[in-house]
Amino acid sequence: MTAPVVTAFRWVPPFAQGLVRDLRVRWAMEEAGRPYDVKLIGFEDQGTDAYRALQPFGQVPAYTDGGLTLFESGAIVLHVAEGSDALLPADADARARAITWMFSALNTMEPAIQGLVEIDIFFPDEDWAKGRRPGAEARVVQRLKELSTRLADRPYLDGERFTAGDLMMSSVLRILHAGDLVEQTAPNLAAYRARCEARPAFQKALAGQMGDFVDAA
Amino acid sequence: MTAPVVTAFRWVPPFAQGLVRDLRVRWAMEEAGRPYDVKLIGFEDQGTDAYRALQPFGQVPAYTDGGLTLFESGAIVLHVAEGSDALLPADADARARAITWMFSALNTMEPAIQGLVEIDIFFPDEDWAKGRRPGAEARVVQRLKELSTRLADRPYLDGERFTAGDLMMSSVLRILHAGDLVEQTAPNLAAYRARCEARPAFQKALAGQMGDFVDAA
Repeated sequence: MTAPVVTAFRWVPPFAQGLVRDLRVRWAMEEAGRPYDVKLIGFEDQGTDAYRALQPFGQVPAYTDGGLTLFESGAIVLHVAEGSDALLPADADARARAITWMFSALNTMEPAIQGLVEIDIFFPDEDWAKGRRPGAEARVVQRLKELSTRLADRPYLDGERFTAGDLMMSSVLRILHAGDLVEQTAPNLAAYRARCEARPAFQKALAGQMGDFVDAA
Repeated sequence: MTAPVVTAFRWVPPFAQGLVRDLRVRWAMEEAGRPYDVKLIGFEDQGTDAYRALQPFGQVPAYTDGGLTLFESGAIVLHVAEGSDALLPADADARARAITWMFSALNTMEPAIQGLVEIDIFFPDEDWAKGRRPGAEARVVQRLKELSTRLADRPYLDGERFTAGDLMMSSVLRILHAGDLVEQTAPNLAAYRARCEARPAFQKALAGQMGDFVDAA
C-alpha cells in the first residue's frame, strides 16, 4: 500500500517559505503519525491540464490517496483529522467545536489577514495599497482582539486539548510572522501561536517543507 | 425536545437581504428536513457579552442545539450535513470531495468575491477602491473561469448529485448577484447557480430569511 501524496512547491520566494499551505497538511499528517510522500511541482506546472485535474485552481496542496483526490488545505486537514484521534476529540460536541475553529480560521481570520499581508508583499508601492492599508490593518486588529478575548487564558481554543482547529488557526496566525502585529495586539495569541509551533509534529512538518526547498536549490 | 436555534438579523440593508449567512444554515436545515427555530437579533446585540458567548466575532449565524453551540456557516452546514444523507453522500470518497468543495467555496472563492463586492458596497467613492477594483475584479474572473472549467457540463460540482459543497458554492456565487459578472464570465456557472437556487429547500430558506425581515419591519 502506498502512502498518500501531498503536492508542494519545489521553491518559493523567501517571504513564502514556511507558509505555503502544504505545511498545514504535512503538520496534520505528522500529528496523526501517518506516512506521506511529497510530490514537488514548479510554478510552470500550475496551469497544466494534468495538475488542474488534481487542483482546479492550480494551487498547492493537492492530495491523492489511492483513487481519492482532494484539494484545499482545510478539506485535506479535516480528512486526515477524521481518521486520527490526535486531531479531533471523540466526543461529538467537542469534535464539532474543533471543526468550527477550522472554518473560523479559514473564513473569518484568514481573508482579513491575507488581505493585509498581500498589500505589504505584492503592492507596497501602489497608491491604492497605501490608501487601503490602514483599514485593512484595522480589520485584522479587530479580529485578533476578538479571538484573543475568546481564547483568554486557555492553552487552546476549546480548552486544554490541541485540535485540528488549533492547527488551522495557528497556521493562519503564522501568516503575520513578518511583523509584530499579533504580539502588539494580543500577547495571549502570540503565546498561543508559539505553543502550537513548539509541537514536535509542527517542527517536523516545517523542517520537511524547508528541507524540500533546500534540496531543490 | 426543542429544535436547534439559528440566529439571524432582524433587519439588514437591502443589498444584504437574501445574502446574510444564516441563509446557508436555513437552506441546509430545509434540505435535511430538520425543524429549526430562528432567534432574531439586532446590530446592537453583536457586541454584547451574551452574544459573544455564542459567537466570538459577533457575526451571524450562531447555532445552538441543546448544550452545543456552533458558529461559522461552514461549520454549521457541515454539522447539519453530517446528520443527513440529503447533503453528503454515504460513499466516503464522494463525501470527502463534497467537503472539499465547501472549503473551496469559503477559502478560495469567497475571499476574492467578498473583496470585490465590498469595494462596490462600502467604498464606492474611495480613491483606493478605484485603484484596486480592476485587480480585484480580475482575480474574481480568474477564479470563476477556473471553476467553470472544472464544472464543465456537469449539473453539480461532483457530478449528478447536489451536496453541501454545491450549497456552499452556489451561496458564495450568489454574492455576485448585484452584477452580471457570473453570467458574462461563465454561463455554465450562472446556470449552475440558478439550478441550485431553484431547489425547493433553497426557496423555502430564502422566503424564511426575507419573511423575517418583513415581519420585523
